[in-house]
Amino acid sequence: MTDAPAVTVLAGGVGAARFLQGLVQVCPPEDITAVVNTADDVVLHGLHVSPDVDTVVYTLAGAIDRERGWGLAGETWQAMDALERYGGVTWFRLGDRDLGTHLYRAHRLAQGAGLAEVTGEIARAWGLDLTVLPVTEDRLETRVTVVDEGEIGFQEYFVQRRHDIPVEGVRFAGAEAARPAAGVLPAVAGAGVVVIAPSNPLVSIGPLLAVPGVREAVIDRRDHTVAVSPIVGGRALKGPADRMLDELGHESSAVGVARLYAPLAAALVIDEIDRDLAPAVEAEGVRAVVTDTVMRDPQTAAELARATVGAVR
Amino acid sequence: MTDAPAVTVLAGGVGAARFLQGLVQVCPPEDITAVVNTADDVVLHGLHVSPDVDTVVYTLAGAIDRERGWGLAGETWQAMDALERYGGVTWFRLGDRDLGTHLYRAHRLAQGAGLAEVTGEIARAWGLDLTVLPVTEDRLETRVTVVDEGEIGFQEYFVQRRHDIPVEGVRFAGAEAARPAAGVLPAVAGAGVVVIAPSNPLVSIGPLLAVPGVREAVIDRRDHTVAVSPIVGGRALKGPADRMLDELGHESSAVGVARLYAPLAAALVIDEIDRDLAPAVEAEGVRAVVTDTVMRDPQTAAELARATVGAVR
Repeated sequence: MTDAPAVTVLAGGVGAARFLQGLVQVCPPEDITAVVNTADDVVLHGLHVSPDVDTVVYTLAGAIDRERGWGLAGETWQAMDALERYGGVTWFRLGDRDLGTHLYRAHRLAQGAGLAEVTGEIARAWGLDLTVLPVTEDRLETRVTVVDEGEIGFQEYFVQRRHDIPVEGVRFAGAEAARPAAGVLPAVAGAGVVVIAPSNPLVSIGPLLAVPGVREAVIDRRDHTVAVSPIVGGRALKGPADRMLDELGHESSAVGVARLYAPLAAALVIDEIDRDLAPAVEAEGVRAVVTDTVMRDPQTAAELARATVGAVR
Repeated sequence: MTDAPAVTVLAGGVGAARFLQGLVQVCPPEDITAVVNTADDVVLHGLHVSPDVDTVVYTLAGAIDRERGWGLAGETWQAMDALERYGGVTWFRLGDRDLGTHLYRAHRLAQGAGLAEVTGEIARAWGLDLTVLPVTEDRLETRVTVVDEGEIGFQEYFVQRRHDIPVEGVRFAGAEAARPAAGVLPAVAGAGVVVIAPSNPLVSIGPLLAVPGVREAVIDRRDHTVAVSPIVGGRALKGPADRMLDELGHESSAVGVARLYAPLAAALVIDEIDRDLAPAVEAEGVRAVVTDTVMRDPQTAAELARATVGAVR
């Protein structure tokens, strides 16, 4: 690992967190930067909640509830239960221990600290050695247009409605005016390898690339950029990426992902199950790397990370 | 109870809450208004915390932790424990279930609801039939000047420093510009009986009276106003009222309390133990009513409430 390149990962939530859990086993964590989506962030009860950042941190700290896929293992729910007495907003469940994170973040933001600074403090408090950066400290808000209903917030779509409704549009409010957080563009420009994590291309990676300067920085590093397909056998392993791709006029397949990422990445890691799609992926102008992409545990995640980084070193 | 007068109680925290617990047994709760101190309110982690209001509500709901004197019985502390990981502010302990209240209040305030409206919602959610009003919705902030240290916030003094330091001044920041919450002045003007609860005269009742219009409204009803001395045998039953009275040039006795309340109240309820002070109290121009004022349980509180209301009916 002595000549390991600096690796910058464009990250959403669960899929990216698992990938990073593999990556820290094959690259020195100090050389890794995760640039994390903040367009799912939501202010609830006066508290700034950063679901993707927290999923990345909790996962890397080994503290995530793996079964539920979000929040802390061994969590309790006293505050939410109490909130129900008042008819408060409880569809977005914040566990008692998880609330400690949101209380801290709210306190530091109120003191005038930036989201990037606070995110770094939270990551260090969990003993992490990699750099975790929110893509921006400015407003960036995924808005989803639901068929026959109109536009709703991302968490209304994702959590409250359990992404069980057809979508006809997505936009990232605030993106035009958002600035990359300090360190984001240098992390992309200076990386030996840029990874686009196996996250939802439209609502996890999409908002990152919508922050002015980020897409351009990745394109500049295209030869050293590799994406991991979040679509395996035509399906998303988690979340609504497959349906969203369909509904928004893309193809829910490794080929569809290749088409989206061709301007950005020299290589796309696809699953063994999609081996037959390799020629079609390459026809999009992206080198196909075929391996096992289903991260069942930290070991398979490490193998995927090794293959991914190796694809563009 | 059919011809019971409307009763308005100027209230601080624990002492007032226990008095109200007695009062609701001897007067129809619908005819009771508690005007509660908000100068101890504090914004913590982005959440508006109203300690006196919550103590009143939790006590009347039978949900208070009587031993600790604040917060909810059977409380858990997962969020605070988690916050410690980050080195966050944990000296002001917010229990997990208590956080439900603060999350709800923060949510409603962010929606644009007023503090009085939200306070009413919280009281009703706990099944209370009396009216609980914050004295003001405007900024009102008790600031304490500590000998050799300078000015600190009330909760820094009261909780963080455990009021274990000598005080040389108290002021209520924002008081000049604060307006009584809707309903406060009518509740005083229209009450058959106004009670000044056995709360700290300087930092619980003091800020209520500092809100322009409140002192005048009470003075207008002086013949129907009765105070309950929080000083028994020269000592405060709870909190620093005795030391504060001394330190700020008052007398820590029922007589000292009579002197403070003489312009406002026609009668002062003092404890049996202070029976000998009755003439000195009356020399201040206040009728002395001697009874047992130590509220050991809801029954003794009810007896005190009956004697108190009876003093000026």
